Amino acid sequence: MSEYNAPLQDIRFVMQELAGLDQVVGLPDYRDATPDVVDAILEEAAKFAGGVLAPLNRAGDTDGAKWKDTVVTTTPGFKEAYRQFVDNGWNSVSCDPEFGGQGLPRLLATAVSEMWKAANHAFSLCPMLTQGAIEALTIAGNAEQKAAFLPKLISGEWTGTMNLTEPSAGSDLAAVRSRAEPVGDGTYKVFGQKIFITYGEHDMADNIIHLVLARTPNAPEGVKGISLFVVPKFLLKADGSPGERNDVYCVSIEHKLGIHGSPTAVLAFGDHGGAIGTLVGEENRGLEYMFIMMNAARFNVGLEGLGDAERAYQRAAAYAKERIQGTELGVKGGPKVPIIKHPDVRRMLLSMRSRVEAMRSLAYVVAAAQDNARHNPDENARQEAQAFADLMIPVVKGWSTESAIDIASTGVQVHGGMGFIEETGAAQHLRDARITAIYEGTTAIQANDLIGRKIAREKGVTIKAVIDDMFVDAARLDGDLEAVGIRQMAAIAALDRAVDWLVANFAANPKAAHAGAVPFLFLLGITAGGWQLGRAAVIARAKIAAGDKDPFWPAKLATTRFFAAHSLTQAAGLAEAILSGGEGALEMADESF
Amino acid sequence: MSEYNAPLQDIRFVMQELAGLDQVVGLPDYRDATPDVVDAILEEAAKFAGGVLAPLNRAGDTDGAKWKDTVVTTTPGFKEAYRQFVDNGWNSVSCDPEFGGQGLPRLLATAVSEMWKAANHAFSLCPMLTQGAIEALTIAGNAEQKAAFLPKLISGEWTGTMNLTEPSAGSDLAAVRSRAEPVGDGTYKVFGQKIFITYGEHDMADNIIHLVLARTPNAPEGVKGISLFVVPKFLLKADGSPGERNDVYCVSIEHKLGIHGSPTAVLAFGDHGGAIGTLVGEENRGLEYMFIMMNAARFNVGLEGLGDAERAYQRAAAYAKERIQGTELGVKGGPKVPIIKHPDVRRMLLSMRSRVEAMRSLAYVVAAAQDNARHNPDENARQEAQAFADLMIPVVKGWSTESAIDIASTGVQVHGGMGFIEETGAAQHLRDARITAIYEGTTAIQANDLIGRKIAREKGVTIKAVIDDMFVDAARLDGDLEAVGIRQMAAIAALDRAVDWLVANFAANPKAAHAGAVPFLFLLGITAGGWQLGRAAVIARAKIAAGDKDPFWPAKLATTRFFAAHSLTQAAGLAEAILSGGEGALEMADESF
Repeated sequence: MSEYNAPLQDIRFVMQELAGLDQVVGLPDYRDATPDVVDAILEEAAKFAGGVLAPLNRAGDTDGAKWKDTVVTTTPGFKEAYRQFVDNGWNSVSCDPEFGGQGLPRLLATAVSEMWKAANHAFSLCPMLTQGAIEALTIAGNAEQKAAFLPKLISGEWTGTMNLTEPSAGSDLAAVRSRAEPVGDGTYKVFGQKIFITYGEHDMADNIIHLVLARTPNAPEGVKGISLFVVPKFLLKADGSPGERNDVYCVSIEHKLGIHGSPTAVLAFGDHGGAIGTLVGEENRGLEYMFIMMNAARFNVGLEGLGDAERAYQRAAAYAKERIQGTELGVKGGPKVPIIKHPDVRRMLLSMRSRVEAMRSLAYVVAAAQDNARHNPDENARQEAQAFADLMIPVVKGWSTESAIDIASTGVQVHGGMGFIEETGAAQHLRDARITAIYEGTTAIQANDLIGRKIAREKGVTIKAVIDDMFVDAARLDGDLEAVGIRQMAAIAALDRAVDWLVANFAANPKAAHAGAVPFLFLLGITAGGWQLGRAAVIARAKIAAGDKDPFWPAKLATTRFFAAHSLTQAAGLAEAILSGGEGALEMADESF
Repeated sequence: MSEYNAPLQDIRFVMQELAGLDQVVGLPDYRDATPDVVDAILEEAAKFAGGVLAPLNRAGDTDGAKWKDTVVTTTPGFKEAYRQFVDNGWNSVSCDPEFGGQGLPRLLATAVSEMWKAANHAFSLCPMLTQGAIEALTIAGNAEQKAAFLPKLISGEWTGTMNLTEPSAGSDLAAVRSRAEPVGDGTYKVFGQKIFITYGEHDMADNIIHLVLARTPNAPEGVKGISLFVVPKFLLKADGSPGERNDVYCVSIEHKLGIHGSPTAVLAFGDHGGAIGTLVGEENRGLEYMFIMMNAARFNVGLEGLGDAERAYQRAAAYAKERIQGTELGVKGGPKVPIIKHPDVRRMLLSMRSRVEAMRSLAYVVAAAQDNARHNPDENARQEAQAFADLMIPVVKGWSTESAIDIASTGVQVHGGMGFIEETGAAQHLRDARITAIYEGTTAIQANDLIGRKIAREKGVTIKAVIDDMFVDAARLDGDLEAVGIRQMAAIAALDRAVDWLVANFAANPKAAHAGAVPFLFLLGITAGGWQLGRAAVIARAKIAAGDKDPFWPAKLATTRFFAAHSLTQAAGLAEAILSGGEGALEMADESF
């Protein structure tokens, strides 16, 4: 029951048919990613995820990371699995070849990431955070920093962390109080306490490279006075190997609802004279660098939602095929049947699966856009792809994670009473998924970014172009897909109304606009997910018409139809909620809450 | 932060203005429930809930019930709190005065129950299960059984349990295999294993009275061959006091996602020769008795959803007023503010609160209907009230509990990163609430009961009458409540369409109808909740117009408006999903899941 089988057929289909794998691997820098290479990587990743990471998922939950006297010991097996992960080269899939990376497309890295996250969410956070550190140093590090840290981070011998949050500075990074004092030799002494630091301390690697937000003396107040520093756990010797222990210590780890296998550290910097670090990039531009790397992290957290949801679905579907209870509806005196025969169990399973497929499709399409934004030789194409990715990343993050919570909860429900028993494993997915809508920016933070920076600031130019594309694709949903097409059209129209309203009201009624930000994010997620499923259904219909007997195609039609009937039909109501402009919520007196 | 303040003002308002307290206490058997008595009970219950039960809630979670060698030890403090609970007479509020109960209206008992559940869900299960045993014995017990057990159960000196589930008999009770062999002296020896037995073993009372479903020799197969037995943990001595230990032992308790303070027992009956029990009522009618008592239990589980949701709301609102983060939108360079100033936090809080108020209103109205169904001197009024209660109990159960899960999850979200940390307490409500949609019949079981026995069987007569009442009340939402009225009308119309479709398709397309059962239950819950909030808003408007300055009234208008904009707007989409008739879900091949 704790098995994980990577859904390779859907992954391949989405990469190929929806995200345009051929076009992506045709980009100048991706010529090494031949179809054979892509295929081999997917196969091997599926084996590693199912064979090595997934079996450790439950142990990560029941026997999570432990803290004692500043030392963190991870779940038995994690260290060895991480060693294998690094040895097999998985850490470097999409990294820069200049420093030892494999330079493969993000589209492929996305598929591979989904597998790690589905197999073992808590484990997967370690390489994800390392990836963040790699990106920060790649973007803003100087040559010395790159040479010192990137090869080891890319290989995975060392891991990385992001140190943003402090007790009074969560969503509001303007309140960061950690400070960095120049020593005079080009280094800084860093002081302060950081909380919620994922894999901030552990025993899986020889060194941990902390990227830390702090203020230099006399830095301006607010977000414009925050700089980024790199602070290794062990200072580097002249030969580049880890030497003296730096003054950063883990003073505790959190007792959390989920992802117990991932140590969430409270880190004390400088309690014994100062933690030695160096400035990354320019002074006072720390937040800017963090945001570039955060965009990648946010996309990746969206993939965590997808992964948790896929795993929850697989577990629920397996249970529903196995658990015998009741007789089939309409078959009086018939034999006891597996519960998958019961209509509501099917409804629950398809509510899970149809959203998983929609989330995957959207995420992969956005991954391909990120590849084009970086490597398309055509400037216009690059810009267009970047605008699309910027628009959709908060949606991939916010919609996929919030959906994942509901999907994992539905997975519990499919199990009935057994779902509430921890040994069953279904509850872990709910507990694990719950964090994804919070960290790397809560859903509201994503939604505010979406309606503000991604829509209102440019008066909806990008989203209006996307809406046009959606209409064109929806028009293809004719004939036996007409019912889907009508619902898709209605959803797009609702989205369009909401965009117009947001653009008109963002500046004039900012509170009203922001009260609808999260419902708008959901509306865009549902409509964009339906858009991609609709594209998939048109292809599936053509395959069936061409005589292809693979049951994958009718299944794709089924998930699309279900999504249209149960998810797209929510769109009009969401638009109404948005257009209500915070009615009720804004007028209520603070004291009355 | 772990405080609970019973929302007495809303409780009193709903009892008085929506549920018709005056009419209820005017019923012949409730004349003792004078306004003074009702008020005093509410005040005292609020004190007991907030002062005794709520402070133990967190300990119940972190230091839950423990099992060793068949003995279960409850959380430190639970035993003493239970003693106080019993000494103060709280166990007997709505019980039959003939056996020592106070015979107070169910409407009042409902308000009091909500407080226990909100204060300490895990603790409250013990008296709830006792209540079930009391009802079963009241309905079907013989004079001897009543005399032996009822006084002690009603006082709370002994507690009761319901033993239905077996490893292969969960939702499908036809599969029950436990057996009862007549000894010849009027007693039976009971054999079998029962699982998921709430408070099946504990240290809080001198005896535990198990109500057990089992089959007599040669009983027919299926549900028609199940009988009900009463099996005390300690057999009674001639003087009625607990004597010899009976052959029922707790072989383990479950490790659960939530309600850790409530021991969920695996009970072995008859491993050492047979557990002595007596038949309750007639042979083979056990399920029927269980169902009568289950209706009460289901209603009570709906109140658990309400209680968990209220508690989650209180915690989130308190945090939002206290947590300083960011500046107010539109106030550039302004001071840091409590997060309750942020529009999305307000949206989240009102999404919680508006549903809590809707759930409470509906539940209390249904409680009053139950009082009328039992005690109204007019036969027609009794029948009408019974039909309304029968229709709505699955909705109170299914809709309130599913909503509670989402509300508790939103409560976590309001706390941001702190919500994921167990010490904060917000996560416990999510974990605790998760069971409510499962036990005493999953949401699908409620929904199937709703569309089958409560609607299709009578061709929608009762619900159509309710819809007529709803339309009449919605017509009063005019003037400044017109926007609410329009949304309420649209929701009622959607409900009406769905009812027509269900009645038309229930027999002809049973699977299609059942695939829409849960969405229908939600549609009815939302529409009925909006109905009650709409009635409340009309009263609030009148109070304000009459010069009443209590901030309760504008707050009620705000929650109603928000509910209309965010919940009622989902109704049309739900109706569409229902009318899709399981599109996608039913056509998918089993192997494709």
